[in-house]
Amino acid sequence: MRLDQRSPCPINLALEVFGDRWSLLIIRDLMFAGKRHFREFLSSDERISTRILTDRLGALVEEGILTKAEDPSHKQKVTYSLTEKGIALLSIVAQIGIWGRSYGPVTEESGAHAARLERGGPKLLKRMMSELRRTHLPAHPRGIG
Amino acid sequence: MRLDQRSPCPINLALEVFGDRWSLLIIRDLMFAGKRHFREFLSSDERISTRILTDRLGALVEEGILTKAEDPSHKQKVTYSLTEKGIALLSIVAQIGIWGRSYGPVTEESGAHAARLERGGPKLLKRMMSELRRTHLPAHPRGIG
Repeated sequence: MRLDQRSPCPINLALEVFGDRWSLLIIRDLMFAGKRHFREFLSSDERISTRILTDRLGALVEEGILTKAEDPSHKQKVTYSLTEKGIALLSIVAQIGIWGRSYGPVTEESGAHAARLERGGPKLLKRMMSELRRTHLPAHPRGIG
Repeated sequence: MRLDQRSPCPINLALEVFGDRWSLLIIRDLMFAGKRHFREFLSSDERISTRILTDRLGALVEEGILTKAEDPSHKQKVTYSLTEKGIALLSIVAQIGIWGRSYGPVTEESGAHAARLERGGPKLLKRMMSELRRTHLPAHPRGIG
């Protein structure tokens, strides 16, 4: 689509960036499961294919949601990190989990995270965002955020 | 995917239901543009195709996000309404808009709705959900919710 023909609706613009199931599952893995490496994303329950994973990681880096860096401790490994723009997706992903727990066939165990997010409210989200900044943003001074 | 093989993660279960750009744009149109008819969804800026629109409306009805009803005033028209399960998606769609306004190339005009959502916070969302219930849920008593 030509840029001048794009819908400027902010909901549409956001969905053009991350509006597919696999992108949001990768972001979930980074936020809630501490996953940072290709093989870790590949091993999630939803069994993403290597082709889709490669494609989505590339797109998320290009969109500035993730950064990728060589892992100095493993020559062949690349580490993915969330950017501030990626971390700002936390409240969306949390709301999706809260909705899924209310309306999906979750077990008590599989819904425990979402239940905690709902109970914790905006205060918990703020704490989790600070923690994500500490873990994912390289130059972020400890203790701030 | 066989049911016993499905990931029970609530984020995944939710994304299996509405985790694609077009479904969320249809839900946006119902929530923020007051659209209820096939031709109205078709005329949105994003130019959804009739094939995808038919497919997504059917899936959203099957998932219990929407209901469809003959419109008594137009024999050939079908009216789509949000269910309570659909109305509960408001906070997700609002957060997506707020994120899109922060990070996308929005104009002041196209971002005005999202700016209002951000300023209004949970109080505004609650008021909007009541309004959606009044408009979309047939048996909902006026003034409650």
